[in-house]
Amino acid sequence: MERVLISDLGKHIGEQVSISGWISVRRDQGKMVFLDVRDRTGTVQGIVLPQSSAIDAAKEVTIESAVTVVGTIHTRPAKNIIAGKLNGDIELIVENLTILNKAHTLPFDLDAELNLDTLLDNRPLMLHTEAQQDIFRLQATIVQAYRAALIAREFTEFQAPALVGGDAEGGAAAFKVQYYYDTTAFLATSPQFYKELMVNAFERVFTIAKIFRGEKHATPRHLSELTQMDFEMGFINDFRDVTRVLEEVIREVVKTVGEKHADIFERFGVEVPQAPDPFPMLSLTEAQEIIRQQFNREIEDVHDMSPEDERQICEWAKREKGSDFIFITGYPTKKRAFYTYEHIDQAPFSSGFDLLFRGLEINSGSQRMHDYETMIARMRERGLDPEKFGFYLQAHRYGIPPHGGCSTGLERFTMKMLNLKNIREATIFPRDMNRIDVKISE
Amino acid sequence: MERVLISDLGKHIGEQVSISGWISVRRDQGKMVFLDVRDRTGTVQGIVLPQSSAIDAAKEVTIESAVTVVGTIHTRPAKNIIAGKLNGDIELIVENLTILNKAHTLPFDLDAELNLDTLLDNRPLMLHTEAQQDIFRLQATIVQAYRAALIAREFTEFQAPALVGGDAEGGAAAFKVQYYYDTTAFLATSPQFYKELMVNAFERVFTIAKIFRGEKHATPRHLSELTQMDFEMGFINDFRDVTRVLEEVIREVVKTVGEKHADIFERFGVEVPQAPDPFPMLSLTEAQEIIRQQFNREIEDVHDMSPEDERQICEWAKREKGSDFIFITGYPTKKRAFYTYEHIDQAPFSSGFDLLFRGLEINSGSQRMHDYETMIARMRERGLDPEKFGFYLQAHRYGIPPHGGCSTGLERFTMKMLNLKNIREATIFPRDMNRIDVKISE
Repeated sequence: MERVLISDLGKHIGEQVSISGWISVRRDQGKMVFLDVRDRTGTVQGIVLPQSSAIDAAKEVTIESAVTVVGTIHTRPAKNIIAGKLNGDIELIVENLTILNKAHTLPFDLDAELNLDTLLDNRPLMLHTEAQQDIFRLQATIVQAYRAALIAREFTEFQAPALVGGDAEGGAAAFKVQYYYDTTAFLATSPQFYKELMVNAFERVFTIAKIFRGEKHATPRHLSELTQMDFEMGFINDFRDVTRVLEEVIREVVKTVGEKHADIFERFGVEVPQAPDPFPMLSLTEAQEIIRQQFNREIEDVHDMSPEDERQICEWAKREKGSDFIFITGYPTKKRAFYTYEHIDQAPFSSGFDLLFRGLEINSGSQRMHDYETMIARMRERGLDPEKFGFYLQAHRYGIPPHGGCSTGLERFTMKMLNLKNIREATIFPRDMNRIDVKISE
Repeated sequence: MERVLISDLGKHIGEQVSISGWISVRRDQGKMVFLDVRDRTGTVQGIVLPQSSAIDAAKEVTIESAVTVVGTIHTRPAKNIIAGKLNGDIELIVENLTILNKAHTLPFDLDAELNLDTLLDNRPLMLHTEAQQDIFRLQATIVQAYRAALIAREFTEFQAPALVGGDAEGGAAAFKVQYYYDTTAFLATSPQFYKELMVNAFERVFTIAKIFRGEKHATPRHLSELTQMDFEMGFINDFRDVTRVLEEVIREVVKTVGEKHADIFERFGVEVPQAPDPFPMLSLTEAQEIIRQQFNREIEDVHDMSPEDERQICEWAKREKGSDFIFITGYPTKKRAFYTYEHIDQAPFSSGFDLLFRGLEINSGSQRMHDYETMIARMRERGLDPEKFGFYLQAHRYGIPPHGGCSTGLERFTMKMLNLKNIREATIFPRDMNRIDVKISE
């Protein structure tokens, strides 16, 4: 018999159907057994009557077993109808139950409150729960909406490499890889150089790339392996051409996610983000002045935003501008990556920006340097050896136009979208100092 | 002035416009200068007349420099019209030329025939050529069409990790990564385990994942870093549920690519692949019997397809079945990955398959084992320690349904789509034994 999806059962009242899924709930009432069967589209209640040929299997089957169930769809008695719930008005009278894979006894109830480590140790099992599935369904939509917005704007997708020859930026600690012939390769800390090389051909490019950061962070917002949604564009006038595209993309993502997953936001008790046109934009100096005045405290570091600064300026943006997003610009050039452009009129401040969302930086970008001589000078200033950047510098040698771009952290964006406490909750299989799937043991 | 894209210039005859792009051709005729200017949408011929204020810049500008050009669009004299060519009927009388970034002298003519190493050493520069751009535009379309076909079939996308805790499959040589605290991590050789964990929640999942293979291959079809397009689906009856979805997806990709990039196929002198419904499917034994008879030669290894076997059976499929694709099934279980399902009636042959395209395996898949006890037994048989697979085995412990999936190599698919000779041509920044961007030096 052909499988019917559980969300379609309402169309089959009075008919015999075959469904497949997992046993969510099993209540053995002695003579009869009640089963909730769940597939990717929803849940239905099944009833195994005493005379059913499925009664033995219904007695044997365990929670979270995979099953195929054949039965007939009946309308529920009026007193049992649950209005507004999928299949709340029907039930499946079970005639046959095939156990496809019998689950072992669960280590705990799936609705138990788990601490983060237990959750992550049991992530494969915990993905059976709606709450866990919600996070990653929403994340899939973020990625797809982000890509769709860029493709609609004529950005060309490319596959940025994860293995790189050197720890070129010299900033973030890059993981070392034992490559061939006892040579050392590194894991990419950013697809930046490759994006720029691509801009010099395709003008507008994007990549969804894995990046790797080996710093010894153990915070709720850092991971060792991340998914970055990066784009880069050429022939720009200044960095505001980049922030304009970014804003549009983010607004489209928020709209798509908000429409498609209204139910998830409701279940998580979180509002769909407010993403007005335009996003508020402040310079670092302006932002810190507002924090000083409105939150009545001193700023520790006037050259950068602290986590507390980020939280408070977002609080202000939400209250005063009705926005969950805010751009911060005007960071000192020396605080930014070496390829960051500095307009002569703005020195010593750079053409870089960060986008904050609900208290956290989720995107960082800038106009980049395009002139070969200026780039060489900047590299020397930073103690970098231009000889090691020959491949990258082909862009600057051979006509790369004024360009800029940015990078959005998918896990941070997901985390804040649902107001999760820890980035690991928004990462399907997180890697950090202490964990790759399970705790690291030596 | 707002930038006009070069493909839109035909709409602006008689108007002053501003375009931005690169200088493709520069012919200095003494008093006047002819310039071909190229952007991501096409090329236009510009003429700098002796009295133009752009004449000095036109004398100075070099090939492949990035420029902004202001001028007026004129209809060409009738004798100069090139029919059927973009902007073959118009020319731009240049009034102003701004050099945004002046290119250094090129190391060679961009239309020179290069050997592969020179091409790859100069990939960033060579991306200025149409032939190079064609490959990666087509590749971007493959990825997008592949994803679209899966999303339309309710597959959920996820981000598979690149860093893994162990060299679990034990087959392909996995690269070692120096992780924290002197522990060793590895680069994933496949997203297989994670796909299966996801199936146990979402039923149908896919991922576009980087994988890494450290074997010492130096062939035209092997890379050390690859992009795999993987999907996996649950509640299948047998592996043919997987091949059916794969066929549909491939047919949609071929259709989209063929329609969108007819010009690229023409420039490469290659036909759009023939992808009939259904694809031919032979068992290994049947395929080798055909090769024996039709190509009049002995088979060296009856347990697997050699590269020559793959080429010849594809030749047969093209000639006899009008198909550029053919499935081969019925490989011995012992030749396949440990998680490959073996139906009791088919032993010692597995429920695995390969998809060949124009003489090369581009996809490999199978039904997988779902039963916990059988899986443990198989692991022991292969000398694998089930203790090390605890995370993965949560799927088998907790109700993973019968499932299967497959993995398409993006670079191989692209390579054969355009009949390129070497997989490195179809890889934007290839990594192999001897190269990461440039040749590896110790």
